[in-house]
Amino acid sequence: MRRTMIVLAVFLATTLLAQSPADPPMLGFSAADAAKERALEAQFDSSLKRDDLRDWMKRLSARPHHLGSAYDHDNALFIASLFKSWGYDTNIEEFSVLFPTPKKRVVELIAPEHFTAKLVEPPVPGDATSGQQSEQLPVYNAYSIDGDVTGDLVYANYGIPADYEILERNGVDVKGKIVITRYGGSWRGIKPKVAAEHGAIGCIIYSDPKDDGYAQGDVYPKGAYRNENGAQRGSVMDMPVHPGDPLTPGVGATKDAKRIDRKDAEVITKIPVLPISYSDALPLLRALGGPVAPSEWRGALPITYHMGPGPSRVHLALEFNWNMVPAYDVIARMTGSQYPDEWIMRGNHHDAWVNGASDPLSGQVAQLEEAKAIAELAKTGWRPKRTIQFAAWDGEEEGLIGSTEWAETHADELRSKGVVYINSDTNSRGFLDAAGSHTLEKLVTQVARDVPDPERNISVLARLRAHEATRQSTRDGNAEMRREPHDGDLIRLDALGSGSDYTPFLQHTGVAALNIGYGGEGGGGSYHSVYDSFDHFTRFGDPTFDYGIAQAKTTGRLVLRLANADVLPFELKTFADTMSRYLDELTKLAETTRREIDERNRLVREHAYENAADPTKPFVAPKAEPPAPYLNFAPLQNAIAHLKKSAQEFDRAAAAAPADRQAGFDRALMHIEQSLLLPNGLPRRPWFRHQIYAPGFYTGYGVKTVPGVREAIEQKQWSDANAQIESVSKVIEGYVAEVEKATR
Amino acid sequence: MRRTMIVLAVFLATTLLAQSPADPPMLGFSAADAAKERALEAQFDSSLKRDDLRDWMKRLSARPHHLGSAYDHDNALFIASLFKSWGYDTNIEEFSVLFPTPKKRVVELIAPEHFTAKLVEPPVPGDATSGQQSEQLPVYNAYSIDGDVTGDLVYANYGIPADYEILERNGVDVKGKIVITRYGGSWRGIKPKVAAEHGAIGCIIYSDPKDDGYAQGDVYPKGAYRNENGAQRGSVMDMPVHPGDPLTPGVGATKDAKRIDRKDAEVITKIPVLPISYSDALPLLRALGGPVAPSEWRGALPITYHMGPGPSRVHLALEFNWNMVPAYDVIARMTGSQYPDEWIMRGNHHDAWVNGASDPLSGQVAQLEEAKAIAELAKTGWRPKRTIQFAAWDGEEEGLIGSTEWAETHADELRSKGVVYINSDTNSRGFLDAAGSHTLEKLVTQVARDVPDPERNISVLARLRAHEATRQSTRDGNAEMRREPHDGDLIRLDALGSGSDYTPFLQHTGVAALNIGYGGEGGGGSYHSVYDSFDHFTRFGDPTFDYGIAQAKTTGRLVLRLANADVLPFELKTFADTMSRYLDELTKLAETTRREIDERNRLVREHAYENAADPTKPFVAPKAEPPAPYLNFAPLQNAIAHLKKSAQEFDRAAAAAPADRQAGFDRALMHIEQSLLLPNGLPRRPWFRHQIYAPGFYTGYGVKTVPGVREAIEQKQWSDANAQIESVSKVIEGYVAEVEKATR
Repeated sequence: MRRTMIVLAVFLATTLLAQSPADPPMLGFSAADAAKERALEAQFDSSLKRDDLRDWMKRLSARPHHLGSAYDHDNALFIASLFKSWGYDTNIEEFSVLFPTPKKRVVELIAPEHFTAKLVEPPVPGDATSGQQSEQLPVYNAYSIDGDVTGDLVYANYGIPADYEILERNGVDVKGKIVITRYGGSWRGIKPKVAAEHGAIGCIIYSDPKDDGYAQGDVYPKGAYRNENGAQRGSVMDMPVHPGDPLTPGVGATKDAKRIDRKDAEVITKIPVLPISYSDALPLLRALGGPVAPSEWRGALPITYHMGPGPSRVHLALEFNWNMVPAYDVIARMTGSQYPDEWIMRGNHHDAWVNGASDPLSGQVAQLEEAKAIAELAKTGWRPKRTIQFAAWDGEEEGLIGSTEWAETHADELRSKGVVYINSDTNSRGFLDAAGSHTLEKLVTQVARDVPDPERNISVLARLRAHEATRQSTRDGNAEMRREPHDGDLIRLDALGSGSDYTPFLQHTGVAALNIGYGGEGGGGSYHSVYDSFDHFTRFGDPTFDYGIAQAKTTGRLVLRLANADVLPFELKTFADTMSRYLDELTKLAETTRREIDERNRLVREHAYENAADPTKPFVAPKAEPPAPYLNFAPLQNAIAHLKKSAQEFDRAAAAAPADRQAGFDRALMHIEQSLLLPNGLPRRPWFRHQIYAPGFYTGYGVKTVPGVREAIEQKQWSDANAQIESVSKVIEGYVAEVEKATR
Repeated sequence: MRRTMIVLAVFLATTLLAQSPADPPMLGFSAADAAKERALEAQFDSSLKRDDLRDWMKRLSARPHHLGSAYDHDNALFIASLFKSWGYDTNIEEFSVLFPTPKKRVVELIAPEHFTAKLVEPPVPGDATSGQQSEQLPVYNAYSIDGDVTGDLVYANYGIPADYEILERNGVDVKGKIVITRYGGSWRGIKPKVAAEHGAIGCIIYSDPKDDGYAQGDVYPKGAYRNENGAQRGSVMDMPVHPGDPLTPGVGATKDAKRIDRKDAEVITKIPVLPISYSDALPLLRALGGPVAPSEWRGALPITYHMGPGPSRVHLALEFNWNMVPAYDVIARMTGSQYPDEWIMRGNHHDAWVNGASDPLSGQVAQLEEAKAIAELAKTGWRPKRTIQFAAWDGEEEGLIGSTEWAETHADELRSKGVVYINSDTNSRGFLDAAGSHTLEKLVTQVARDVPDPERNISVLARLRAHEATRQSTRDGNAEMRREPHDGDLIRLDALGSGSDYTPFLQHTGVAALNIGYGGEGGGGSYHSVYDSFDHFTRFGDPTFDYGIAQAKTTGRLVLRLANADVLPFELKTFADTMSRYLDELTKLAETTRREIDERNRLVREHAYENAADPTKPFVAPKAEPPAPYLNFAPLQNAIAHLKKSAQEFDRAAAAAPADRQAGFDRALMHIEQSLLLPNGLPRRPWFRHQIYAPGFYTGYGVKTVPGVREAIEQKQWSDANAQIESVSKVIEGYVAEVEKATR
């Protein structure tokens, strides 16, 4: 008995030693350097304080601070003063940008009865800032064109292209009509764009309580969700064409920049558009006639949803002050000791639509705390090997203006020095949400493994896994089918589309990027409303700021490891694997689309649509469309096969690099993402140069990976699809050539 | 040019001749007899008149005619007089059955505020019979037990077992509480049954406008759908245990039948239950607290749906008059010339919850027209080879009482003479909906091929195909995945569960059965309400009665072909193919269930549920459950392999049978369904003897095929599952033995 126990004890000790959680591998670091890094991170953690986050959020959200407002400038000065006080080399960079604010807003139902939309979010009890009406921007969509239109109303669901196909099947034409759509299903800017493409003369966007209101939970101030008067402000500039100041596409909006005429700005909407609350939408929708909307179109208002057109007739009149306003980006830098010209960049915007406690301050205050703690490390004599730069951007809400103008202004320097840009935005209780360049998957996973979850006694990686596994097994009982694609221990990063400040870095300049935040347990409907307040956030978002601290630990580790690593902690294999998955998706999409067209054409030929239709209801059968050809995926298949092989060889070589070759691998890695760009950009939108990641032309925020090929297939432009396959294949082959050069 | 045209013309003529739609094959008939039959059917069609249907519906729906009412008896006498006038051998068969009607109905919210449910469906303009309040049965659930209970309210979604699992995960216990569930998701009788199993003391069932109200379409009288005061009456007797009079299970409820005591009747509910409208439900649900209901639970009321329990506190008090009432079945017979002891049976109930224009009169008047037209044929000297019997059942709404008592009374005769029972119930505009014994698939398909659709210039078969093909391709763009499984030209019949009068014939007595009707374009929410009126039906159901005529043509052809065929038009191959599909389903279900248990147990072991849960919300993690074994499907696989082989041999032999052997095949075919029964019935419910088709123990109407095996797997009773596989395999082997005997 005794002997067995000793053997067992020895066995256990050995096992524990071998698997000790104290020293798991750390990408980019030797074992010795990893141990030092770990000690540094422990020191970093020890100076993080929740009260800082609370105090800063209270101060920064005390008054409305949108682009161009007095308090926006005040906040920029305050943030700069913090960075300076911590020892960062800090400056405020100013741009001059076009920013329309409302002069006149009218939405009236003029038939079959009369109703005037209130267009007001009233103060609510228990919310200290909701009554600051003199400084609040009213509810509107920025970069709507001026207009005064009257027309019959049509309900177009989410207002995406597929919805207009259904309107057409039901014999409803939006030409000369005003379209009302609900928020959701796409980024808001897509709605007026697609409505205009179909001939509508105006667009109203409302928050349906099914997507954003009482159907989700108790409404504010009783609960966190959008109340009947809440409405969603937001930009509708055509950001999938380009973000940033509409008058300076592609160049920094410095004081003396060359500006185009406003009438030539292609990102301003073609028709007037305004967002309204669900109490304002109800009378308009209730009075609609025409076909009953299909079940997926029905929201949670207590009415029968009809498509129209009419008898609801609406008058929509909008006028804006088309002013030029200053945008203030705060930039704070700590120069690297070994590689000063390798920039590890962090950023989060500081401007808001109104008080913006959640959006963006929940992320901004975590970033400030991270910067403070890194400065504390520097006070002990430590210096990062690479340069660390923090940015607090202005004008994000209007169209990523502060970050875009900065990136355009510093494009050459960025291309030469930019290693990575790590973005954050809103943050709340819940689960790690990480997206970005796939070369960074292993780094993100290792960081997630090392950050403890504030609510459960496990890492945030383990908690994310538990969340994914149980969410899916609860949802449909078929866990194996729905399981997220994990590759062994790796988190699979979502690809980046748009919607926050990483876009100009990744998609225009070719700097590898990440977007990091926590969420999923906060819930709520304060987004872009006057109710996005300190009071709302501290009741429903992250009351203890524990997840603000978790965020600082996560992004802080990312920054520190990127800044301190022996060799940059990138891994090319994960990118190659991801490309292989995209290829599978694309070939499947092409095949499915081809078969669907065949099947639909067969049904058209057999008159199946007419034969099935109810003759008492309006119905327009679809027409046959040209059959889809088989596409030639071979060039892409070959390129990706090369990529997989050369990526593995590179990773092995980089990991085994002797000290004198490390700088060379660094230089290769920091520029490799740039070889995925083409100078002429994507079809129809040259500003977007990245050939692997882009926001969808008809989704707005939602990503389209390998966008040239994918969107050509989706839009059934077959010769474009073949050409884009060729083009992307060459890009990948060019990437492979760079990789192979660096490996040698 | 000329020559080519002649060749083409000859080719076309030949092709047309060969494929002439005038003489496609007709199962059970020689070519010569098929031609005669076709002529007969044309003659049958020519005497069908839409005005008859309209006049009879108006007359029969003029006053409320529920079981036990004066007008119910009056209608029975009127229907009998019609049959007699057409020359049928007609009688009214009377039973004496238990039928509770309300003496007291109280639903009150007593906290946090006070509200008394109205429980009234008021008259509406334009509906001539909705104001006949003195004769209307009030809104209630028949066979609820008496009770007076007060308790906190819990919202339990549809009230099916899976919903209680979710309540448990959220820490909500219904013990001692009153449960409110919405209609849908199962047959209504399941809701109080499952609530009582979980310890609830009362049950309220309401019609949520999402499933049955304004979310579907404009409400009555503006449109067809259920208005805020409409409520759904209906029986809640535990029909999956047995239908029919609760006091005479298994035997006919004749005057002097032996009756059990009411307290021993196992089909009466264990707790009081009452249905209410959505205007009555709103105050109760609005006041609920506790966890927010999951998104799939949320209906279309303009509130946040919570689970409770409380603070809504409800008083539910119900008292009934437990009267014995007469039930009047009208039976009309035309004796067959060649096989008088082979009965082709048709039936549709005549009783309603209130005026019942749609349910059941839309089906009943089509049946009457069919009977009239067959009688006209008889006046020309024609006689059916086999006996035709029409039935107009009473007491269907209360629990298939009229048909069940009749089938139990005549069980011996039915087993010896019954060939087939063809049921119908409601009927409206739209598409053929056919369900039943799979031996009848080819017959039904051939009939559907020969009936023209009233709205489109194609057969009802072609229209059904167009409907299925376009519905699926529209729904998810993936037609190939979702296409109904057609076997060449065959309609695949749905299997029969319960919900109408076929049940005692098919599932208790072993008579092959069909259920036939049209629908899908009528729409509406008048079901079991005072608004199921002549006015409603002639606006929204089938205004021209064209689909009533289509129904008469369909069921008329089925009856005539079954009555006139040389050999009964059954095909065993289609049954064998169907069994093979069920086997695939069962093996897949067993495997999926096994894997799900494994996966869930793994997550339980890893504490994934606790780790993923939001600590600020109540959550109870699931427990590990015993792992599922692999089941031995071999006996069933062998039996079904035998079945497929012997079925094909039988079909070939029957089709080629010389005249002197036809009677023998008839006898085999008419009794073959009976070999699928076991005298002891299904586990827990001996009344249900059929081993292939049964209503689900926890679905009520929804069918469970191979129910012994399927429900054992679903309920994870593994040794029962193996035993049931053995048992069903023996049943199939017995069937095969009968088939092989008949083939020889």
